[in-house]
Amino acid sequence: MYAQRVLSGMRPTGSLHLGHYHGVLKNWLRLQNEYPCLFFVADWHALTTQYDDPQGIVSSSWDMVIDWLAAGVDPARATLFIQSQVPEHAELHLLLSMMAPLGWLERVPTYKDQQEKLENKDLSTYGFLGYPLLQSADILIYRADKVPVGEDQVPHIEFSREIARRFNHLYGRKGTGKMILVEPGALLTEASRMPGLDGQKMSKSYGNTITLREDEASVTHKLRRMPTDPARVRRSDPGDPGRCPVWQLHQVYTDESCQAWVQQGCRSAGIGCLECKQPVIDAILSEQAPMRERAQPYLDDASLVREIINEGNKKARHLARETMRDVRAAMGLDYG
Amino acid sequence: MYAQRVLSGMRPTGSLHLGHYHGVLKNWLRLQNEYPCLFFVADWHALTTQYDDPQGIVSSSWDMVIDWLAAGVDPARATLFIQSQVPEHAELHLLLSMMAPLGWLERVPTYKDQQEKLENKDLSTYGFLGYPLLQSADILIYRADKVPVGEDQVPHIEFSREIARRFNHLYGRKGTGKMILVEPGALLTEASRMPGLDGQKMSKSYGNTITLREDEASVTHKLRRMPTDPARVRRSDPGDPGRCPVWQLHQVYTDESCQAWVQQGCRSAGIGCLECKQPVIDAILSEQAPMRERAQPYLDDASLVREIINEGNKKARHLARETMRDVRAAMGLDYG
Ligand code: SF4
Ligand code: SF4
Repeated sequence: MYAQRVLSGMRPTGSLHLGHYHGVLKNWLRLQNEYPCLFFVADWHALTTQYDDPQGIVSSSWDMVIDWLAAGVDPARATLFIQSQVPEHAELHLLLSMMAPLGWLERVPTYKDQQEKLENKDLSTYGFLGYPLLQSADILIYRADKVPVGEDQVPHIEFSREIARRFNHLYGRKGTGKMILVEPGALLTEASRMPGLDGQKMSKSYGNTITLREDEASVTHKLRRMPTDPARVRRSDPGDPGRCPVWQLHQVYTDESCQAWVQQGCRSAGIGCLECKQPVIDAILSEQAPMRERAQPYLDDASLVREIINEGNKKARHLARETMRDVRAAMGLDYG
Repeated sequence: MYAQRVLSGMRPTGSLHLGHYHGVLKNWLRLQNEYPCLFFVADWHALTTQYDDPQGIVSSSWDMVIDWLAAGVDPARATLFIQSQVPEHAELHLLLSMMAPLGWLERVPTYKDQQEKLENKDLSTYGFLGYPLLQSADILIYRADKVPVGEDQVPHIEFSREIARRFNHLYGRKGTGKMILVEPGALLTEASRMPGLDGQKMSKSYGNTITLREDEASVTHKLRRMPTDPARVRRSDPGDPGRCPVWQLHQVYTDESCQAWVQQGCRSAGIGCLECKQPVIDAILSEQAPMRERAQPYLDDASLVREIINEGNKKARHLARETMRDVRAAMGLDYG
């Protein structure tokens, strides 16, 4: 009855890195060819953990949108917008809050998790507790039925489904079973564990990243300095790719025959580590080249990104307003 | 630095009664002559306890505004508006939620009180817990420094002050001490314990009310049937005004000499109860006459009330948007 629609948001955390590309953006590129997609900058979400230092959210947001475009997200296919520029999210969040049981929020597994993980921050705020409800509003306001998420976020989607069900039960037209809000489904995204420069998952907090549009010299330098199997002290010492972070990058970036060459050459000390790294360096640089190229016009003329986002905000707002009209009418809050 | 401004809201609970008139509206009439005033229909607040049955909020809202106008609230002096029609309240509420400590909300004394009082309702909702925060947003978005409240609501104003202080501390321009939000003050309103037809406080839930514009016959009938001192079984039995609810109405409505007449006549069985009630009946009817008269044009032409409210919504929204501009800028959420 409703068109299929994908919704996905990203917090503006500064420049994106290759982990984001392999973990999220490549998935977005696939999705934008299959469904109408809404991709948004979750700037209000950033406040749930960053309320004490929000300066910089705006510039991170612009940088991130440029990274999306650089990666190949296509504003002609997908709608790109900024959450705070569609204030209807806040209105739906407020209306949903009235019927959202506290217990449901307290039971969302990420609530206690996150609080423990970020225990040096005071996260006992009303907004942090309500974060899954804001997420529900984000999804439900677009009647998005497909939300790409990793395993750990599935409970949030389940929470949104329950909120939609409760809303429809309380306010849907009795008898007709009319659904006002659409129950979203999780589009399970396989967790890509993109390795960083040290073999740990690539993450800004580990300082082991390559950013999406990092310049060639810096990328080459970082990769050449990457640690390898500690057993290979001298060129003549054989190594074990299983103990080497470079091997993990080979698994992401090179083909079977190259990987066979690494295995054989490493174990027999037939190749040197710099030699071994070269195909990875080449692959990453050639992955990045079109991104840098696509980003250039947006860097040259900031108004281009603004136009794309203004256009996206407008489209998103149009959809959001339609839903809010139905929501208000269903709740009997329609002053006509 | 900011203009003095009064803000007061009322939940749309259906037709107002004389308790509202003596307890709130007469105070508004005084205030509208002294300060710029904003009076609003708190329809979102109604949802905090009425989320499971919101139908009727709209018609209650329109009825209530007519009652305000009937009582003499003057749209040329005060701005009358409807909370949900200024969705900026929801945005400020969301932004404040990010920095509002849960503990502060849990400690607001009315939270546990209300939950106990309405224990047959499930009020363990996120919105009910956040009710004082929504109230804070209502106040702070207008930089209202004067909020008329009864004793029991003082903690809510204190809560709003603390929220404003925390906001200014977190986001105010360092060093300059610039206040973004204005700390409101409580304008303590003396609790008028307007007696109902049974001597208890007049309240819809006791079924002892006279509505603001109730027709003359009904008012007369209700007052004539009012219970009196049970000791006065026969006309010749003397009574004690201290045991009679009619005496309480005399204290509100009649002058000293009339009250002396009651005291003397009752205790000596010199007057009958119907005789005693007549001055009260006359006073109430003459209090109501101009109200019925002022209401008539609005009942004849519903578009008049709509125009007043549309105008008020517009004015309120203008003020709210100004504050939100400063709030977003202070929080670094200004996309320009
Ligand atoms: S040869 Fe390659 S896999 Fe082996 S230790 Fe060196 S960099 Fe790692
Ligand atoms: S005379 Fe007046 S005060 Fe005395 S019992 Fe009758 S109504 Fe009450």
